[in-house]
Amino acid sequence: MKLIIDAMSGDNAPEAIVSGCVMAAREFGQEYILVGKEAVIKELLAKEKAEDLPISIRNAEDVIDMHDDPATAVRRKKDSSMSVALRMVRDGEGDAMISAGNTGALLSGATLVTKRIRGIRRAALPTQLPCKGGRVLLLDSGANAECTPEYLLQFAYMGSFYAEKVMGIKKPRVGLVNNGAEDTKGDTLRKETYAVLQAASEAGRINFVGNVEGSDVPKGACDVAVTDGFTGNVMLKTVEGVAGFLMGELKNMFLTNTRTKLAYLLLKPAMGGLKKMMSSSEVGGAPFLGIARPVFKAHGSSDARAIRSAVKQAMAYVEADVVGEIENSIEYMAL
Amino acid sequence: MKLIIDAMSGDNAPEAIVSGCVMAAREFGQEYILVGKEAVIKELLAKEKAEDLPISIRNAEDVIDMHDDPATAVRRKKDSSMSVALRMVRDGEGDAMISAGNTGALLSGATLVTKRIRGIRRAALPTQLPCKGGRVLLLDSGANAECTPEYLLQFAYMGSFYAEKVMGIKKPRVGLVNNGAEDTKGDTLRKETYAVLQAASEAGRINFVGNVEGSDVPKGACDVAVTDGFTGNVMLKTVEGVAGFLMGELKNMFLTNTRTKLAYLLLKPAMGGLKKMMSSSEVGGAPFLGIARPVFKAHGSSDARAIRSAVKQAMAYVEADVVGEIENSIEYMAL
Repeated sequence: MKLIIDAMSGDNAPEAIVSGCVMAAREFGQEYILVGKEAVIKELLAKEKAEDLPISIRNAEDVIDMHDDPATAVRRKKDSSMSVALRMVRDGEGDAMISAGNTGALLSGATLVTKRIRGIRRAALPTQLPCKGGRVLLLDSGANAECTPEYLLQFAYMGSFYAEKVMGIKKPRVGLVNNGAEDTKGDTLRKETYAVLQAASEAGRINFVGNVEGSDVPKGACDVAVTDGFTGNVMLKTVEGVAGFLMGELKNMFLTNTRTKLAYLLLKPAMGGLKKMMSSSEVGGAPFLGIARPVFKAHGSSDARAIRSAVKQAMAYVEADVVGEIENSIEYMAL
Repeated sequence: MKLIIDAMSGDNAPEAIVSGCVMAAREFGQEYILVGKEAVIKELLAKEKAEDLPISIRNAEDVIDMHDDPATAVRRKKDSSMSVALRMVRDGEGDAMISAGNTGALLSGATLVTKRIRGIRRAALPTQLPCKGGRVLLLDSGANAECTPEYLLQFAYMGSFYAEKVMGIKKPRVGLVNNGAEDTKGDTLRKETYAVLQAASEAGRINFVGNVEGSDVPKGACDVAVTDGFTGNVMLKTVEGVAGFLMGELKNMFLTNTRTKLAYLLLKPAMGGLKKMMSSSEVGGAPFLGIARPVFKAHGSSDARAIRSAVKQAMAYVEADVVGEIENSIEYMAL
């Protein structure tokens, strides 16, 4: 397998991206193409003593940053690392493409360059959130602020394939994020979507378990939580905000007095597990589901470990041929 | 001041409601009317040795429960404790009414019986959430799944009055919950609402600080977080779910081994503060903002302390005359 990595995008690029690629090459093997300023990347690879690894470089002089207009960046900056990498994955020069750059620019670029799977209305960005007993896939977590029941039906299918093939969950339970558990709950979008998810479930194509409330998702009530990108983004950010707030309060509590400081020392080894569970570096990245080629978005603040984890996700996505899986079921996804 | 309390509604009614009323009477003085089955309430008051307190009883034989249709319950069950209590507060037999019953039934009932303030399009349910440095008022937290920019403008005004008069926050900072901080973010509702909030702020009537993301709210980036009732409900429940999940994981961590169990014993006194901060019993209840008389919704799972706290909130709401404040500004609240 060959992975194309945008070396220049992200808060910690290019250092963390190159390091993460080296880490992945050592851990998983495979071939890699780092896209970006050749001289800079070459120097970083030398520093990592990675000259013998199967990592090549494709030069790209420009970079898309957070100030570029997402809708037009990839078209306007044709020689940017992101644009070059997208054309490479479109043309089959590699099996998957990974970027930690501007989410909007990457989504617009992927839609423009690598295109959506025929019949898919919108690509969705899924996010794996920690929950009781494991992880839950939330989608759309921010790509599409305004959605129709058909989009949400397609998200339910695509999320199910991803949860089954990449996360290894058998018959993933699909929940519709709603403001109550009863089937009469929600706004017009939710009521209409409930009916189409129910029909797909009755036909045996997805495993719809009904409405889930915000509090049910962290409890692990479903494996795939389907929602529009506005609500999904607010949920995802709320989870991050509350977790950060509580960890901060916990830290303050540990600093209260000598007793609590001693308690912290006793807890430190066990705290590692909690921190690891909450860390986004363990998942690393997510594909735009519905794009015709594997395009992975890594977190903007990705460190080397997050890039390494994104490579792992991308490998699983390519191996399981999730794109082919979506294409095979596309006839059921239209309303 | 005289408080009318629906004694029969809520998961722990009537015991917890009567106990909470007794607790409030002992702590705050004031007069109370408990509405519900007279014989049952009398017996509970006797058990509490509360015969000498200024608590009277108004008999009501029926009860609205979770199985009643919210839209019609108050009209259909005219002799229910909730219906009787609503008519009493409408007719001036008390200054405020408190119920831990079915939220939808109470909202429909209040709209029907006590009516909205003239010019207010929808009543909103605010919730005080813990955040860095204090509490943030989230509204609408569940009353109206579908909203217009005008509703959200009215929520911003009403939330500001409540935060200032009841929570004691000077010039409360109003944020619009959105999927990004930039002023171009969001769906149509958010974009249109941004403009009207900006205009109200430029006229010096509210203190609008722009868009806030889900992660900004727990960080204390605003005092009043304005959103539609669908998003507000999902946020509120997500906060509850994540907090519950993390507290559970923390508990598991404490149970890991002898060291962590010892750590727990050392932390126990300090943990009380964290638990108290996260507890809904400390706020107890919230008014339906925009209803012409003070109608307070207490949490369905209210214990006695939550009812006592709801009484405290209701007293502050009546004293500050938030209803009068809204009426005085109604001319600015129309679009």
